[in-house]
Amino acid sequence: MLKYWNKMLSRSLVRLSKRWQLKSQLHDLKFWNLRANNKNHIEVNGLDTVDLIENYGSPLLVVNRKQLLMDIQDLIKPISSAPSGSKVLYSYKTNCIPGILREIHNLGIGAEVISAYELWLAEKLGVPANMIVFNGVNKTDESIMRAINMKILAINIDHWAEIDRIYRLAKQLDKKVRVGIRLGMTQDQFGLEIESGEAIEACKRIISYDDHLDLACLHFHVTSNAKNASYHKSCALRALKLMYQIGVETGVTIPYLDIGGGFGVPTTKTMSRAEYGIYRLFGCPPRPPTLRDCQPIDLFLSEIINSMNKFCLKNNLPMPKILIEPGRFITSRSEFLLVQVHVIKTKKDGTLFAISDAGRLSSTFPCDYEYHEIFVANRANDRMNQIYNIMGRICTSADWMVKNRYLPDLQSGDILAVMDAGAYFSSNSSNFSFPRPGIVMVSDGKSSVIRKHETFDHLIAMDVLKAPSKG
Amino acid sequence: MLKYWNKMLSRSLVRLSKRWQLKSQLHDLKFWNLRANNKNHIEVNGLDTVDLIENYGSPLLVVNRKQLLMDIQDLIKPISSAPSGSKVLYSYKTNCIPGILREIHNLGIGAEVISAYELWLAEKLGVPANMIVFNGVNKTDESIMRAINMKILAINIDHWAEIDRIYRLAKQLDKKVRVGIRLGMTQDQFGLEIESGEAIEACKRIISYDDHLDLACLHFHVTSNAKNASYHKSCALRALKLMYQIGVETGVTIPYLDIGGGFGVPTTKTMSRAEYGIYRLFGCPPRPPTLRDCQPIDLFLSEIINSMNKFCLKNNLPMPKILIEPGRFITSRSEFLLVQVHVIKTKKDGTLFAISDAGRLSSTFPCDYEYHEIFVANRANDRMNQIYNIMGRICTSADWMVKNRYLPDLQSGDILAVMDAGAYFSSNSSNFSFPRPGIVMVSDGKSSVIRKHETFDHLIAMDVLKAPSKG
Repeated sequence: MLKYWNKMLSRSLVRLSKRWQLKSQLHDLKFWNLRANNKNHIEVNGLDTVDLIENYGSPLLVVNRKQLLMDIQDLIKPISSAPSGSKVLYSYKTNCIPGILREIHNLGIGAEVISAYELWLAEKLGVPANMIVFNGVNKTDESIMRAINMKILAINIDHWAEIDRIYRLAKQLDKKVRVGIRLGMTQDQFGLEIESGEAIEACKRIISYDDHLDLACLHFHVTSNAKNASYHKSCALRALKLMYQIGVETGVTIPYLDIGGGFGVPTTKTMSRAEYGIYRLFGCPPRPPTLRDCQPIDLFLSEIINSMNKFCLKNNLPMPKILIEPGRFITSRSEFLLVQVHVIKTKKDGTLFAISDAGRLSSTFPCDYEYHEIFVANRANDRMNQIYNIMGRICTSADWMVKNRYLPDLQSGDILAVMDAGAYFSSNSSNFSFPRPGIVMVSDGKSSVIRKHETFDHLIAMDVLKAPSKG
Repeated sequence: MLKYWNKMLSRSLVRLSKRWQLKSQLHDLKFWNLRANNKNHIEVNGLDTVDLIENYGSPLLVVNRKQLLMDIQDLIKPISSAPSGSKVLYSYKTNCIPGILREIHNLGIGAEVISAYELWLAEKLGVPANMIVFNGVNKTDESIMRAINMKILAINIDHWAEIDRIYRLAKQLDKKVRVGIRLGMTQDQFGLEIESGEAIEACKRIISYDDHLDLACLHFHVTSNAKNASYHKSCALRALKLMYQIGVETGVTIPYLDIGGGFGVPTTKTMSRAEYGIYRLFGCPPRPPTLRDCQPIDLFLSEIINSMNKFCLKNNLPMPKILIEPGRFITSRSEFLLVQVHVIKTKKDGTLFAISDAGRLSSTFPCDYEYHEIFVANRANDRMNQIYNIMGRICTSADWMVKNRYLPDLQSGDILAVMDAGAYFSSNSSNFSFPRPGIVMVSDGKSSVIRKHETFDHLIAMDVLKAPSKG
């Protein structure tokens, strides 16, 4: 009986969602710098996506280089109005693919790393040391020593105990190291709290260790995919107040304010708690984002910079150089995932399942809690006709990609383009029963592989294949 | 205001949950064949887990070989009461680690594979072809041809279109191939429905293709971590009815009934929908499983076999040979994950965070929707004192492992043992910012590496490191 009402409620909610799915502003390829060609196929920088699948196999991640460079330029421009020496550092965790990172670094963007691996990769890619910030809640001694030896821009301290640890290691190496403090502005696990006095105490401790530590930075990172500057702005002011207080109490001027990342893109959104709950319980898909809800990045950043300027002027505080650590903003829109529909199944109750060769458990995990637009790459402009559950290829009902999505009629062999695959898709992907997809970059009618499809041999490369000793 | 009430509700629910956490029957290491040694450390087969972390580094997956062999024996015994020729096939997707698979195959268990990769691995590990079943919703032509050439026990067809496809490929190779039909018994994406007549039509089609196809099997797989046989039993009877009907209408006797897997273990459980919702919304952890709720595997299987026998006797149907495809039952309990506590953080509102070097986004994904017991490996018998949020090492508040878990007082350096890591932990793990942990097997006081810790070089082995052409 409960099941019956659940089903009825679910059906009504899904029907209701049909309206907002139909009215979504996202049904236009131009928002991703794509177009439909005369075959009604999606074309990226002069290449037909259907050809890409034929050439490289499915599933396939595709990086639209033109869009990537545009998004980078959009971000570099507004930062030029910040004090000279301000820097943009790409958040490696967002999409840690060397071929993409190279393009980003080529345009003068540095690296924000959160692990020994990411630090190693930034060094390997030749990122200048003064363009690297090392964050993270669980740094190893080796990685801290490497960062000290490299003379990176700053190691941001997340916890009280890190101060003495970094001091000990710097002393051991007989080096001086620039450090920052991550401020805990929210009720999550990160940083040192301002209100409890913990943050200022930590700063004073660092200052007292000035033979080996150099307090270079205050840092916060507060949100993800923010659509406007208000939260960043208020946090920046809280950080500046602390900077002011430190100046008054110790005479020390901190040169950098690292305002983290989390700048949103208009083409995707994180579900609200309620939307997520309703989606999981009743299968009602979230409302697509409204494009005009998202503040353009130049306004977003200048709003923060202006209010900082105002505060500094009023309080006679020198305006700090700004560090930003965008991830999603730089790579979200320029990458999409092509997946192929294997078969369509109609169940007795009319539910339509499209079995695809990608799913939440292997390659599209962010679709679980974010809205991502989906196109049919080989029939780009067909009318939306049917409600589908798009499933993955692992044998468990948990391997769905999206539920109850309104899409054009699908058939076996169709190619779906899952948009905004440039943030957290690769990072979260696993090789659950299947190797992970390859990645190609497309630029001016040419494609090149930047990551090969995983091979079977690669999947067992870490295994010791002879039988373990029988004890 | 809403936030305030949410917080109050959350606190009351967490306080309530303290009671069932304290009363849980799972606080005894013996259920995993472990013990506390005289240092109050967890010991596995004569080895101290603290030494294991010192020797191999953290995080680390540990396979308790003794428990693995016991669980396999427990499963092999009851299947001997099924008709001769019945077989146990391990579900590779559960935990696809060659070093573990070898132990399983050494005891005469075959392989249930769902992808080209898993089929390749089973062949590489020397599993006899007549001990391999190929399931899956998205098989490639190449993998089907390989399976035909290998002469495996059965390819189970999931969708109508696969019949003609396999027939075409078998004809092309001029071979005869054993196939099964996966029956769609639930409202998920799998199999061919019985009630709509689809399943019997599919069987008849296969029979009509008897120059190249041999209808060897009916298959269903209906659930996960089932605590008693009732659902399997009712599904087996539905499948037998269909077998009977096929016999009457076509004269064909199908030799195998593949009843899938999903047999539960007592030491972990999947959260109910309501528990999951409350856990996500208010942080109230689920009630631990009650050990006596779980039917022992011999009763579980004999209940199914007996009711099948009865049906066959009554209807004069020859009793089919049984195939079972356990995954969790075989490996869940014998593997655990050791992770180290990096620091403890107390927030202004009193919330305690333990930052560990593992989390949901890299290595403990099943903790999201399942209950897993957690011990402090270096203080095995300490009293439970405090409520902790155990977090991972990726810089996002989404990287938690468990919320509001009642545990002994924790401090930096403590080692946590996350139990029942032998099912779906490795399969779901990613290398989000960090390499994946190594795996050691422990047997009679000796440990041996069966999978090495991932290296940084391995993480970029598929990358094309020179800059892509500038187009």
